Amino acid sequence: MPSLHPALAEVRRAVRQALTGLPAGSAVVVGLSGGADSLALASAVGFEAPKLGLRAASVTVDHGLQEGSDAAALTAARLAAERGLDALVVRVEVGSGGGPEAAARDARYRALGDAARDAGAAALLVAHTLDDQAETVLLGLARGSGGASLQGMAPVSDLDGVPLIRPLLGIRRATIRAACAADGLEPWEDPHNDDERFARVRTRHRVLPVLEAELGPGVAEALARTAEQLREDAEAFAEMIDETIEDIVEPAEAGIAVSVAALAANPPALRHRIIRHVVASEFHVALTRSQTLEVARLVTDWSGQGPIDLPGCRARRVGRVVEFTASGTGL
Amino acid sequence: MPSLHPALAEVRRAVRQALTGLPAGSAVVVGLSGGADSLALASAVGFEAPKLGLRAASVTVDHGLQEGSDAAALTAARLAAERGLDALVVRVEVGSGGGPEAAARDARYRALGDAARDAGAAALLVAHTLDDQAETVLLGLARGSGGASLQGMAPVSDLDGVPLIRPLLGIRRATIRAACAADGLEPWEDPHNDDERFARVRTRHRVLPVLEAELGPGVAEALARTAEQLREDAEAFAEMIDETIEDIVEPAEAGIAVSVAALAANPPALRHRIIRHVVASEFHVALTRSQTLEVARLVTDWSGQGPIDLPGCRARRVGRVVEFTASGTGL
Repeated sequence: MPSLHPALAEVRRAVRQALTGLPAGSAVVVGLSGGADSLALASAVGFEAPKLGLRAASVTVDHGLQEGSDAAALTAARLAAERGLDALVVRVEVGSGGGPEAAARDARYRALGDAARDAGAAALLVAHTLDDQAETVLLGLARGSGGASLQGMAPVSDLDGVPLIRPLLGIRRATIRAACAADGLEPWEDPHNDDERFARVRTRHRVLPVLEAELGPGVAEALARTAEQLREDAEAFAEMIDETIEDIVEPAEAGIAVSVAALAANPPALRHRIIRHVVASEFHVALTRSQTLEVARLVTDWSGQGPIDLPGCRARRVGRVVEFTASGTGL
Repeated sequence: MPSLHPALAEVRRAVRQALTGLPAGSAVVVGLSGGADSLALASAVGFEAPKLGLRAASVTVDHGLQEGSDAAALTAARLAAERGLDALVVRVEVGSGGGPEAAARDARYRALGDAARDAGAAALLVAHTLDDQAETVLLGLARGSGGASLQGMAPVSDLDGVPLIRPLLGIRRATIRAACAADGLEPWEDPHNDDERFARVRTRHRVLPVLEAELGPGVAEALARTAEQLREDAEAFAEMIDETIEDIVEPAEAGIAVSVAALAANPPALRHRIIRHVVASEFHVALTRSQTLEVARLVTDWSGQGPIDLPGCRARRVGRVVEFTASGTGL
């Protein structure tokens, strides 16, 4: 018996780990583009799921944005069917909100979520790799909105009620390509993956290779480790805020008020997060760091300054509270 | 009267802000290499300090590592003296611990700290810029030890009892060069700054420019903002640990024990930091993330696993505690 190629073994092991614990008899759905990553994932799921008593399906979303996208989707589905998955193709209409990349992604995830719900799936699996994670962190760094932008993607999250799992998040893309070759799979090469108008493509082709060349190999892994730790940090702060927020806010006319004493008693990391949290949940606005710091000075550096105009709201200190009111309420 | 060049105004404003609040009549010491950054800093301190009733001095450290380093140091001191500073040159012997870069840095900071203490200085000022901060974050990212490696340098810290201030940490290097030109200063060009054997030089010359070209301008500023926020986060966690650590640890034979219940009750971000904190303070060892996670599994995933060998110590679960004992105690 020929021994299993190590890359293929690594992919299957990661998939087995992700599937272990899902209720036997349930279905799992793989988001399948037909590219190397999702093809390797689908094949490994086709191999591992039955051994754990799970049914496996794939959903390929045809965005209809490129010539021949329907044929590519059918090819992907056929490959998945050959590996024992119930292979579905869904054609979606892509809107235009937030740029073409974001619109296609929104449409794709909506279709994947719908398909997973329709199948009563225990989980939706998507094929993001360690390289995708590293690229996400670098893109977040370039935006510079702090820890929040560096958390990358979660290994397990929630897509409108369906558990969304990324079994390959700890595996390099090169390993996955090797697994495809060892598994006899011929991935589809999405031309978008070479379109350097996309910041993600430039990050992949030009930024990460320079970092690895200049700072040593292991940069991608280092970025992924960083993301993991910063995600933990963010979750800890979110938990702390959840536990205390109700005790420190009170309704105000056309807004909300936060206790100055409570803001002052917290360390800056929590103070700034509370300010951002209150404004985000009340006015659906994400404050920048400099806006947040300006509001914080109403607490830490109070010298009678006037109201601060923020997107969608204004902040001002009134006695023992900082009051946030909707813009245009004329206070 | 010709108007002040904006770059020079920005440097002076930053210096004024850093000096404001220091006790009148005291001295401040500038660490002066003679390069553009420290020369601009020294000149601005020479301009601003007297207006705030402060005496200004500079210390130039001659490491004696390059031909002509003594002449370069004297030139720097002469320029500082021309701007009204008491200019001192100190010759140091560089050891060989931790590589030549680290050894030179250690010797330099020791000499600067000694000089500042001898002068009874209220602060030691060093000339790190926003670009230095961004480079530090990138170098930390490549190491990937999580948030801790991304905090960069603090605007205010402590050097063996002397306040260490970095007034230029929010200013781009290009601005500082422009300030030098406007101020009639001719900086010394340290050949080390072009020696691409150093990871920092490669980061400066090859990594950061690629990031800015591919991901848009503002990357350096974004990295600096990220560092600032992650530093806040780390300080908040350190404060929380300080507040609770004594209640959750107890001495053990040849080591220390930590309550399983307390570790379990904390979110992962704090649990992992408590583990690292205990090992660092007891055994002077910095655990990697994967070592930390393995110890955490004694709490979160307990199935009777055996002791874990760590650098300098071992961890094992004993009833309701995780016990850390020095390696080789034969437990």
